[in-house]
Amino acid sequence: MKSTIDFNMPVAIVGAGLVGAGWAIAFARAGLSVRIFDNDPRISEQAIPWAVEQLNAMKAHGLLEQSPEEVAASLTRVTSLAEAVAGAAYVQESVLERVDVKRRLMEDIDRVADGNVMVGSSSSGIPASAFASDLGISPRVLIAHPVNPPYLVPVVELVPSSQTSEETVTFVDKLMAGIGQSVVHVRKEIEGFVLNRLQAALLREAWALHREGIASCEDIDKTVRDGLGWRWSFMGPFETIDLNALGGVADYANRLGPLYYSIAQSRIADGPWDAQWIAQVEKDRRQHLSMQDLAKRRDWRDERLMEFAAQRRSAAGR
Amino acid sequence: MKSTIDFNMPVAIVGAGLVGAGWAIAFARAGLSVRIFDNDPRISEQAIPWAVEQLNAMKAHGLLEQSPEEVAASLTRVTSLAEAVAGAAYVQESVLERVDVKRRLMEDIDRVADGNVMVGSSSSGIPASAFASDLGISPRVLIAHPVNPPYLVPVVELVPSSQTSEETVTFVDKLMAGIGQSVVHVRKEIEGFVLNRLQAALLREAWALHREGIASCEDIDKTVRDGLGWRWSFMGPFETIDLNALGGVADYANRLGPLYYSIAQSRIADGPWDAQWIAQVEKDRRQHLSMQDLAKRRDWRDERLMEFAAQRRSAAGR
Repeated sequence: MKSTIDFNMPVAIVGAGLVGAGWAIAFARAGLSVRIFDNDPRISEQAIPWAVEQLNAMKAHGLLEQSPEEVAASLTRVTSLAEAVAGAAYVQESVLERVDVKRRLMEDIDRVADGNVMVGSSSSGIPASAFASDLGISPRVLIAHPVNPPYLVPVVELVPSSQTSEETVTFVDKLMAGIGQSVVHVRKEIEGFVLNRLQAALLREAWALHREGIASCEDIDKTVRDGLGWRWSFMGPFETIDLNALGGVADYANRLGPLYYSIAQSRIADGPWDAQWIAQVEKDRRQHLSMQDLAKRRDWRDERLMEFAAQRRSAAGR
Repeated sequence: MKSTIDFNMPVAIVGAGLVGAGWAIAFARAGLSVRIFDNDPRISEQAIPWAVEQLNAMKAHGLLEQSPEEVAASLTRVTSLAEAVAGAAYVQESVLERVDVKRRLMEDIDRVADGNVMVGSSSSGIPASAFASDLGISPRVLIAHPVNPPYLVPVVELVPSSQTSEETVTFVDKLMAGIGQSVVHVRKEIEGFVLNRLQAALLREAWALHREGIASCEDIDKTVRDGLGWRWSFMGPFETIDLNALGGVADYANRLGPLYYSIAQSRIADGPWDAQWIAQVEKDRRQHLSMQDLAKRRDWRDERLMEFAAQRRSAAGR
């Protein structure tokens, strides 16, 4: 832990599906004591055994200094929200992505929590103002949106509502940085936050190119994975263009801005993805990967993410 | 060489700046004999010494099976276009990105070449129809647009004009695959081709988020390099979403399409990057990286690209 926050206090995981259980690993790996709660006991029962599997795989990839058992020993399953939250410094909620469900949880936490607990929500789209306003706890709630799985992919978007206090943002920033996440500050609530807006922009163009018969899904994927994605995976888009013109980003923008604006203008009349359009993309993808092979390919992806994380660690160590 | 094309015939590099000299390395590494020509002898003189430097760095990163000297021995500088093209199977042109310059070159090649030479243009934006129409050689010209440097980043976009023959596309596809590039077929000419259109889409949203004060350049870069960019660097955007919903890409599109369309609609009125907007981004970037440090950071980037390429090779070997 590089932070100065008192991490002797436990953190609580509320909602123990894939996202919540993934967060549990991220916190426990950093030495924090983690309580795991889910309204559905069948889900919370699976969380720790699943976490142990992931910890073993991480160990095999050189992603864990401690033993998997040592990390797992920090995980405790509890059977009530009150028990999870009592004396906790922080709650990471990953319950169903529905306004009413998240609102009810905030009211419940507000009732059972003591005065200081902070709450981060894994919400990938619903802003905190939609479910956490006008409660005693409102100043201590924000969005802490991860990419799955958070113990491998470090980014986390912090999105305060207008009622979130600055202390909360500062606390969660330090907590997340302390456990090794890469914190992105989204300064105002906006649909899709930053991550999904960027993804939406790329997908929109990709889908349009496919519909117009310009390129296949596979060729568009190649363009990214064998080209654009290389720089983006260690620099991001602004640094990429800043280094891509002798005079830096302004030089680049002056030269390529008009082309990019013209490209943008050509996409104004795009409609939503309709059934026929979706069917065409689906058909193209299924030629590369059958429906039966999806699960196997997901295992391959997870393996590649572990390798990527291991390469990152070794690059950071140099 | 994995291809069945007769690669005993040499290839010609016309235009020997960074892009052309980079192509020379990519061809020579694969065992082809390469002739290098530039209208400006000061540029062609620098090409081979520069290539040797790169080859040494590649060797140090495990990216070269042969010795740098052995590869460099395949490179020959020539002093006329006729000498470069005579008896060559293929010409890769990387002259100035200007229609009149490229048109004049095509007329010159048409005059000096024998009947069968194929021509790929490194043009990143000008389509072949704009400079290679209505010549004897027109059926044998297409765009072969690389990412720099082509000996590290494998993607190459092949973009035929309406006058390009199918045989030309097939030949250049085999040639590029044979030297280890990743071929993307852009089936129709379109402004920006596929690669720069995808980049334009992501940058457009990134710039808009910055202008609206949603996030800093650095935070937007983090969102990509510590989040989105991980999957894109080995899967691309379509495979990413195909694996991100239990029922594959159609399942994903049905669930997230409406959100993405709503995000797209919010960007319709975006104007071009104007001077004030560019100045804001420039100011933000310069806080992270001073103008004096740009060159050093470019060396860092090139080092990371070498590492990335080495990791790719080792992953592919498993």
